[in-house]
Amino acid sequence: MELKEVLLRRKSCRAYEERPVEKEKLNEVVTAGSLAPLGLPRDGKPHLTVVTDPAALKMLGGAFGPDNDIIYGAPALIVVSCPPSRPGIPEMNAACVVEMMALTATDLGLGNIYLYGVTAALAQNEEWKRRLGIPEGHTPLSALAVGYAAGEAEVCKEWKATLGENRV
Amino acid sequence: MELKEVLLRRKSCRAYEERPVEKEKLNEVVTAGSLAPLGLPRDGKPHLTVVTDPAALKMLGGAFGPDNDIIYGAPALIVVSCPPSRPGIPEMNAACVVEMMALTATDLGLGNIYLYGVTAALAQNEEWKRRLGIPEGHTPLSALAVGYAAGEAEVCKEWKATLGENRV
Repeated sequence: MELKEVLLRRKSCRAYEERPVEKEKLNEVVTAGSLAPLGLPRDGKPHLTVVTDPAALKMLGGAFGPDNDIIYGAPALIVVSCPPSRPGIPEMNAACVVEMMALTATDLGLGNIYLYGVTAALAQNEEWKRRLGIPEGHTPLSALAVGYAAGEAEVCKEWKATLGENRV
Repeated sequence: MELKEVLLRRKSCRAYEERPVEKEKLNEVVTAGSLAPLGLPRDGKPHLTVVTDPAALKMLGGAFGPDNDIIYGAPALIVVSCPPSRPGIPEMNAACVVEMMALTATDLGLGNIYLYGVTAALAQNEEWKRRLGIPEGHTPLSALAVGYAAGEAEVCKEWKATLGENRV
């Protein structure tokens, strides 16, 4: 759909259907992530890890306890991990990748939400990082949960012009 | 235009025409920035400062010396500054805002580039921050330079499916 409609439709989805996301759609989402601008790419590019295994998702979602699913039952989680660079650069790069993916997921009719709690938990667990195939030396920094939204999707925002007087 | 086309057309523009950007277009770009997802918004939201004054742009562009214009002669710079929050959150929020704006600028036919060198320089200069109206306690973290690209805009990327086997 048109960019503007995508921007207005994107919202954080916190309830998902159980049905899995088609691999073709995950592919589109990941491809969009690869089109993000990157700062200092010579320090190494972000790595995307697509997690769809129910046991792995349960492990990640329950990182802060079994009664608090921090990935909201999403059937897919795309983890963005980055190598070290100058302060702030890995975080900004990860965010750019996640946003390209979030918009594309929205365009494909998929609910989605930008998460970092789950990556903060993952970053501190060497065993989980190894099992998920996070590259050596990379830090998981952000993730996008993706799936079919439980409940109706609706345009929930309005285009409100916000520019005041120029500051300078 | 369609989201996918915008994603493919967006690229870092490093040469601009002198003509200013219409205020209506800057307004659209800033409005898109306001639609970005934010982590921990209770800590305070990003602030956008639109700089179009030639003297201020020259000051910022020459932060690392007069022979190295770090904003590439762009006629407008939108600085994103954020209040303190948990580690990494302000940087990720700023990046999300900049990306929404970068895509919208692309959609409007404007060249653009995500910059942080200029905000790193600005962050260390209290006098400049005051003159530009950066809110007290905010740190400039990222910026989008915007203008009409000198030279032809072209679709420079291809949609290449990149998904390998799921890791888990």
